[in-house]
Amino acid sequence: MHELQTIITDPGRVLVSDIPGAYVTDNLGRLKGQCDAVVFPVSTEEVSAVMKWAYAHSVPVTPRGAGTNLVGSTVPDRGGIVLDLSRMDRILELDPDTLTVTVEPGVLLSRLQAHVEEQGLFYPPDPGEKESSIGGNISTNAGGMRAVKYGVTRDYVRGLTAVLPNGEVITTGGKVVKDSSGLSLKHLLIGSEGTLGIITQCVLKLVPKPAYVLGALVPFASLKTGIDAVIRLIHENTGPTAMEFMERKVVELGERYMNLRFPFPEAGAYILLSFDGAGEGEVRTRAERARQAALENGALDFLLLEEKQVQDEVWRVRGALVKAVEAVSEQEPVDIVVPINRTAEFIAYANQVEQESGVQLISFGHAGDGNVHLCVVRGGRETEVWKRDLHAVMTRIYGKSRELGGLTSGEHGIGLSKKPYFRKAADPAAVLAMKQIKLALDNRNILNPGKIFD
Amino acid sequence: MHELQTIITDPGRVLVSDIPGAYVTDNLGRLKGQCDAVVFPVSTEEVSAVMKWAYAHSVPVTPRGAGTNLVGSTVPDRGGIVLDLSRMDRILELDPDTLTVTVEPGVLLSRLQAHVEEQGLFYPPDPGEKESSIGGNISTNAGGMRAVKYGVTRDYVRGLTAVLPNGEVITTGGKVVKDSSGLSLKHLLIGSEGTLGIITQCVLKLVPKPAYVLGALVPFASLKTGIDAVIRLIHENTGPTAMEFMERKVVELGERYMNLRFPFPEAGAYILLSFDGAGEGEVRTRAERARQAALENGALDFLLLEEKQVQDEVWRVRGALVKAVEAVSEQEPVDIVVPINRTAEFIAYANQVEQESGVQLISFGHAGDGNVHLCVVRGGRETEVWKRDLHAVMTRIYGKSRELGGLTSGEHGIGLSKKPYFRKAADPAAVLAMKQIKLALDNRNILNPGKIFD
Ligand SMILES: Cc1cc2nc3c(=O)[nH]c(=O)nc-3n(C[C@H](O)[C@H](O)[C@H](O)COP(=O)(O)OP(=O)(O)OC[C@H]3O[C@@H](n4cnc5c(N)ncnc54)[C@H](O)[C@@H]3O)c2cc1C
Ligand SMILES: Cc1cc2nc3c(=O)[nH]c(=O)nc-3n(C[C@H](O)[C@H](O)[C@H](O)COP(=O)(O)OP(=O)(O)OC[C@H]3O[C@@H](n4cnc5c(N)ncnc54)[C@H](O)[C@@H]3O)c2cc1C
Repeated sequence: MHELQTIITDPGRVLVSDIPGAYVTDNLGRLKGQCDAVVFPVSTEEVSAVMKWAYAHSVPVTPRGAGTNLVGSTVPDRGGIVLDLSRMDRILELDPDTLTVTVEPGVLLSRLQAHVEEQGLFYPPDPGEKESSIGGNISTNAGGMRAVKYGVTRDYVRGLTAVLPNGEVITTGGKVVKDSSGLSLKHLLIGSEGTLGIITQCVLKLVPKPAYVLGALVPFASLKTGIDAVIRLIHENTGPTAMEFMERKVVELGERYMNLRFPFPEAGAYILLSFDGAGEGEVRTRAERARQAALENGALDFLLLEEKQVQDEVWRVRGALVKAVEAVSEQEPVDIVVPINRTAEFIAYANQVEQESGVQLISFGHAGDGNVHLCVVRGGRETEVWKRDLHAVMTRIYGKSRELGGLTSGEHGIGLSKKPYFRKAADPAAVLAMKQIKLALDNRNILNPGKIFD
Repeated sequence: MHELQTIITDPGRVLVSDIPGAYVTDNLGRLKGQCDAVVFPVSTEEVSAVMKWAYAHSVPVTPRGAGTNLVGSTVPDRGGIVLDLSRMDRILELDPDTLTVTVEPGVLLSRLQAHVEEQGLFYPPDPGEKESSIGGNISTNAGGMRAVKYGVTRDYVRGLTAVLPNGEVITTGGKVVKDSSGLSLKHLLIGSEGTLGIITQCVLKLVPKPAYVLGALVPFASLKTGIDAVIRLIHENTGPTAMEFMERKVVELGERYMNLRFPFPEAGAYILLSFDGAGEGEVRTRAERARQAALENGALDFLLLEEKQVQDEVWRVRGALVKAVEAVSEQEPVDIVVPINRTAEFIAYANQVEQESGVQLISFGHAGDGNVHLCVVRGGRETEVWKRDLHAVMTRIYGKSRELGGLTSGEHGIGLSKKPYFRKAADPAAVLAMKQIKLALDNRNILNPGKIFD
């Protein structure tokens, strides 16, 4: 490992001892690995040189962005090098003519969003955690709050530069809008959780910034009525940017955690909507249509979030839900996605499992795209009891999602912690094909080994 | 080959002699291969059985949809089996709740579009050739007329069933909206031109049908002023569905071929616009903003295509341009894509090449996404002269597109005929990675061998 210091000579950028614990885990911090070095490259060339060395010596390498993932995908469980991309954080070019921005992978989402919005442009992908990196967002195909209208990270990647496990550098895509030029390595890299290549430069698509944004909080007596109304709202074609659902009980945790208050506390559940567009009139027209449809479909009220402060507070509580649950008890996150018309059925089943098992299940998530975040809450359980109960609950939950035509992960990825459920849920022939592709590009299995399918 | 008749016992679905010439070529019919059998499967199981047999005997298999490609990608140049998917043409399920339609790959685009529109839904991808198949559209990642607003075929594929070269069947994606569950085999298959797997079932995303559509024809003195205006229109954010450009000289060929007339024949070039949306007022507001921007940027006029007949005729001429050019002389199609702000520069360069080489170059295409279709016209050239001139022109044209950050193909694919240019233009490390992936999934190189990178 000391040889790495001849590749990257800046001593501050190669750690071989006293490695802080944060580098061997994910955001939850429960799964922990072990590594021999943490390296902080600042260029594609450095990443390539490190990979060439690692390849020659068959040393495992775990890429790391901001480490905010929830599935153990940055846990170096086979030792070796943690390659931290956070210092490759330059915004290289904002090109208004092609509506693209070119960045290094370590740029944080919050900074990118602010930067392009200053120029009247907009980067739509918006996962809850804004201090995540663009490289991490691409590698997990992050979704988030605006996916209903704008799609996910995949839809905003125009071009990538990546370093392959053997140190070769490839470029795929570019500033162009369309591409039918051979197999799409770009789309293969997106969502590959650092198992195929290390992303070192990203050309991202932007859109003009919507001139007007309006939020609405819609309280319902129960989550079931709320979710049913969501389907009707989608069919009304009112074009919402976001459609988030939350049970009152999780909102209460969020309120306490953030020391903020939601309007209409007597609700059983909420749907949080957002609309954006080029003009106020047009946005209000759509919001009004949504109001009517919601009230006709069981909404207790339809609160336009006219005041910026109220709007901000509501969204801040929504953004903090994962952390709020975590603050109360250890929890295991679930990120199942089902066809949108099966969401209510899936949540009803989760409630049934909660009652039958006695394990608390908190649900919230992206109602508009069937992406349900469940928190399986540990409470006061002893380790062995928790393991057993958790496994029993997960088996039922993932079994149900499969039955409904769902998938293991809608946006967080598989990483380490969802591997057993993915293995059961996914088509074995497809998983075999994934492994074959992995082996073809990484014949020594050094890049983020042990993840997804390994 | 006669053994195939024990796998598919219906004699009408296995041809082993008197094979019509159409099965060994593409739409242009110039590159011709040779095959030993044409098989017409009707189910995933039959495709799987044929592939298992072909795999066991290392027999090449060329998948074929409607055969409308322009790049030789259905030419069986190593013999073996042509697997014609045209009889797998059932529309299996239209599911309004999830806004999806599930079809077999042989369904023709025209039929799919009509079918979903009857139900108030809309399938946006719209390549010029409506008698192409959905399987072919997916395998080439077809673009077309509405890509500016709606994106390309890739953006409308939710799930696929495919048969791998060894006969194994995989499913990837589904009716779900989001997917971060392992490597995206779905996105790898899209645009892979039948080199990795045979698509046998497709879950496609639909959107609500736009209630109102309005077209506009914008004449300009020259193509250069027209293309410059396009960039301004994009920045005005008027949300056009289509932005097609055509030089007057190619329109004249189209008029003659279709026996129809374009308005404003004194123009040097046209931009054809289309707007759609949920309501007439909103659509007209955007068209009006486009009108102002166009007139401020050199447009000679801005003709709203209010009459359905005029609108249809204009689009029919646009749709027939490839065939109109072909009718006059052999031509070699180019499908280069450059960053949108380099389109004018690229076309200016093509005009310069035309003047310097004496080879006629006709250009039209998708102005809104930098996807330029050039027709390199043979005229009266002898075979050897034509070969030499064509190669010289192509080398310059593809060289320029590379210089401008462009790619070899925006929507037609690489197939056989663009292979030499792709090889020169693409990143060699990326092409090597593509080959490695191909080999991993097709270790006997039997599925559409010789295409793209081979
Ligand atoms: C409070 C909270 C809310 C969240 N909300 C959402 C949400 O709404 N939607 C959502 O999708 N996710 C959400 N997440 C999960 C997480 O933020 C995302 O997965 C994010 O994309 C991870 O980015 P990161 O930079 O932290 O990546 P990391 O955690 O560092 O890494 C994630 C994966 O990407 C790989 N990787 C990172 N950088 C690179 C690179 N340059 N090249 C190759 N591989 C790389 C890693 O090896 C790892 O496999 C949330 C997390 C938290 C803590
Ligand atoms: C007049 C005209 C206009 C055109 N305009 C456009 C346009 O605007 N935009 C555009 O993108 N294209 C256009 N094209 C090109 C062509 O129509 C498209 O490439 C179309 O997608 C091909 O579909 P197909 O069914 O004819 O496929 P084919 O030509 O039969 O096959 C194309 C490729 O797909 C593979 N393939 C076909 N079916 C399957 C399957 N089920 N599984 C696996 N592989 C399969 C084949 O092996 C081949 O590599 C045009 C062509 C013509 C003649």
